Amino acid sequence: MRVLVRDLKGHVGEEVELLGFLHWRRDLGKVQFLLLRDRSGVVQVVTGGQRLPLPESSLRVRGTVVANAKAPGGLEVQARELEVLSPALEPTPVEIPKEEWRASPDTLLEYRHVTLRGEKARAPLKVQAALVRGFRRYLDRQDFTEIFTPKVVRAGAEGGSGLFGVDYFEKRAYLAQSPQLYKQILVGVFERVYEVAPVWRMEEHNTSRHLNEYLSLDVEMGFIQGEEDLMRLEEGLLQEMMEEALTGAGNEIRLLGAEWPSFPKEIPRLTHAEARKILKEELGYPVGQDLSEEAERLLGQYAQERWGTDWLFVTRYPRPLRPFYTYPEADGTTRSFDLLFRGLEITSGGQRIHRHPDLVESLKAKGMDLEGFQGYLEVFKYGMPPHGGFAIGAERLTQKLLGLPNVRYARAFPRDRHRLTP
Amino acid sequence: MRVLVRDLKGHVGEEVELLGFLHWRRDLGKVQFLLLRDRSGVVQVVTGGQRLPLPESSLRVRGTVVANAKAPGGLEVQARELEVLSPALEPTPVEIPKEEWRASPDTLLEYRHVTLRGEKARAPLKVQAALVRGFRRYLDRQDFTEIFTPKVVRAGAEGGSGLFGVDYFEKRAYLAQSPQLYKQILVGVFERVYEVAPVWRMEEHNTSRHLNEYLSLDVEMGFIQGEEDLMRLEEGLLQEMMEEALTGAGNEIRLLGAEWPSFPKEIPRLTHAEARKILKEELGYPVGQDLSEEAERLLGQYAQERWGTDWLFVTRYPRPLRPFYTYPEADGTTRSFDLLFRGLEITSGGQRIHRHPDLVESLKAKGMDLEGFQGYLEVFKYGMPPHGGFAIGAERLTQKLLGLPNVRYARAFPRDRHRLTP
Repeated sequence: MRVLVRDLKGHVGEEVELLGFLHWRRDLGKVQFLLLRDRSGVVQVVTGGQRLPLPESSLRVRGTVVANAKAPGGLEVQARELEVLSPALEPTPVEIPKEEWRASPDTLLEYRHVTLRGEKARAPLKVQAALVRGFRRYLDRQDFTEIFTPKVVRAGAEGGSGLFGVDYFEKRAYLAQSPQLYKQILVGVFERVYEVAPVWRMEEHNTSRHLNEYLSLDVEMGFIQGEEDLMRLEEGLLQEMMEEALTGAGNEIRLLGAEWPSFPKEIPRLTHAEARKILKEELGYPVGQDLSEEAERLLGQYAQERWGTDWLFVTRYPRPLRPFYTYPEADGTTRSFDLLFRGLEITSGGQRIHRHPDLVESLKAKGMDLEGFQGYLEVFKYGMPPHGGFAIGAERLTQKLLGLPNVRYARAFPRDRHRLTP
Repeated sequence: MRVLVRDLKGHVGEEVELLGFLHWRRDLGKVQFLLLRDRSGVVQVVTGGQRLPLPESSLRVRGTVVANAKAPGGLEVQARELEVLSPALEPTPVEIPKEEWRASPDTLLEYRHVTLRGEKARAPLKVQAALVRGFRRYLDRQDFTEIFTPKVVRAGAEGGSGLFGVDYFEKRAYLAQSPQLYKQILVGVFERVYEVAPVWRMEEHNTSRHLNEYLSLDVEMGFIQGEEDLMRLEEGLLQEMMEEALTGAGNEIRLLGAEWPSFPKEIPRLTHAEARKILKEELGYPVGQDLSEEAERLLGQYAQERWGTDWLFVTRYPRPLRPFYTYPEADGTTRSFDLLFRGLEITSGGQRIHRHPDLVESLKAKGMDLEGFQGYLEVFKYGMPPHGGFAIGAERLTQKLLGLPNVRYARAFPRDRHRLTP
């Protein structure tokens, strides 16, 4: 019976079967050493008088588990049989055990179909899967309904720019940049909804922080009193996500040497006006209306120094800085928030306008074309409840949590300005 | 404190707060009756001397829960306060309580943003969410890793036809019609993977069974012995999905009057050759090489009569009927299977070729252009393990389980030959 590498310690002295990949090899003539990697880890295997295939060949090994203080993990398997299930035909383009993933990304991403096999390369995807599992589990418990909305749409939620075009039979369509309208419609149906799905942004930027296709964790909730309900929801949600990642991918988090954040009982909140005041008066930073990336970074440091936390809500953004559907206050602010984690925005959210006449007023106030939003407005003719929501970029959160040098390493097969393969 | 409709029976004699939508109303002058609908159900509310807003207005009601044998569900709420949170501005295009969803789909789908509010209209989406939850939960327990693969790709997994084109900056790209290549690559990384994501097929058909965008539940598993491992996996998986739907969406299943299938300990298996023989010799059906929809329907009846089950695996399809990557047998068949449920194919799967030279041979035997598959072949240079998988179409399974007249009712906002909105 097959035993996973992580379970070998319970089988010392026994004969086991291993299945996996040739991670690394060394031939001393009469004796050959190899490391075998399976989905759970890596173990040393010793065999004799056998020609080993190229690294990354898939293998089946039968042998006895023996304690060996010098072997990685304190165990090795002395092979009695070694079968090559499928040999690698060529040397790998980079050496998988060397985990060169902190190097320039170009080669690593060009050969992502092989380089992903490295333990550190695959770890962020495992952590992300656990974060997403925690996301769903928490919201399921709060009686949210998972939704699956269309990704091919006739128009964007916030106007026409930044959209990738699709030839949809005879018609022009676009890839959705957000499920915004659909999750709002579905609040009228299920009251509380979430979606985990790809979204697309046709951004020209080609930096270590941008992806043109990414995974959006979207939440929308009806019958709220205000944006505070949403921030409290997000606090509980993120806490469960952090815990599930530690439970489900703790080995991967440790392997990457990530400094896992603690989670405060309540994340501190600063209004946008307070944040600007602190930046200007306490930090001496020449702040504009909008908070630059540098300003957010400084606020992250400030939260760390003042409250000892990695997390900070900035609330009540001025109306010109938020989309037309954001619920306005009489003082020119909005019922909105961003969540900063270590000085990086990972969420944007807020209460939405739910009354039709208010939406018409808001579109006009922004100088937007009413005609282009008829489909959106139509929905609000039918008694939408007070509601709001937020979205979390999964790769960005994963990158920041794990301290990855490039957001591309938090996606299996990233799409960027120049990359469509593998 | 708000109480959900489904929990009212525990609050008889108490004052509660209800939040929801005006489902239906009747004004008797001094007394007004209304049905209030929330995410959990519908309850009768009685109020006096109040002008009721249009149906679908969102409401807050405070009142006392009273037993009333004549009211739906045996309870009513006698309102002390009724607040309109947001009034509907127009009558709805169809009457939501009438649930006209068995009528011609055109009007219902055109106004999907409102018609989805009907209890029977929304029920299939709730059932589907539970099926998907069961899918993930089962596979998580079997140590599968959830993956998120690119949906914008440079080429299709099975050649170029049937793909929607995307303008990706200066390049031509396509919407993925399956995560096939990516889930295979990731078997080399995580051994066991699954994905829940949209796929696209540019099919010209515009029938009650076709969607151009649908949700694919994809599974791929490494280090298998053969396709039997996959069928056993799928048996356990489907059983958990069925159970989770009953647990999590039992009310919705009952509301739709669906005849929920029982699940056999083992699904009967017929080889393709046996199935053809039965069709020809026992059922007198003039069967071709391929099994037509009618042939599958007859096989479904046969399974019902012979084994008393709704489920049937048809295995070992001849090589010409399966994609090039299907693992061939020496006798001209393949390690492949379809799963029929009540005579409809809901899964297609099989073992894949995992050795590079065999793939080259298979592409040549099919007369396919090697050049176009260099990216695919590249992956197989690095010791892929024996592996295979399958995919379940979520909407089709939901439709068939619930007996829906049209697959579009199993998707929130369907995309078809002519439909890009809402």
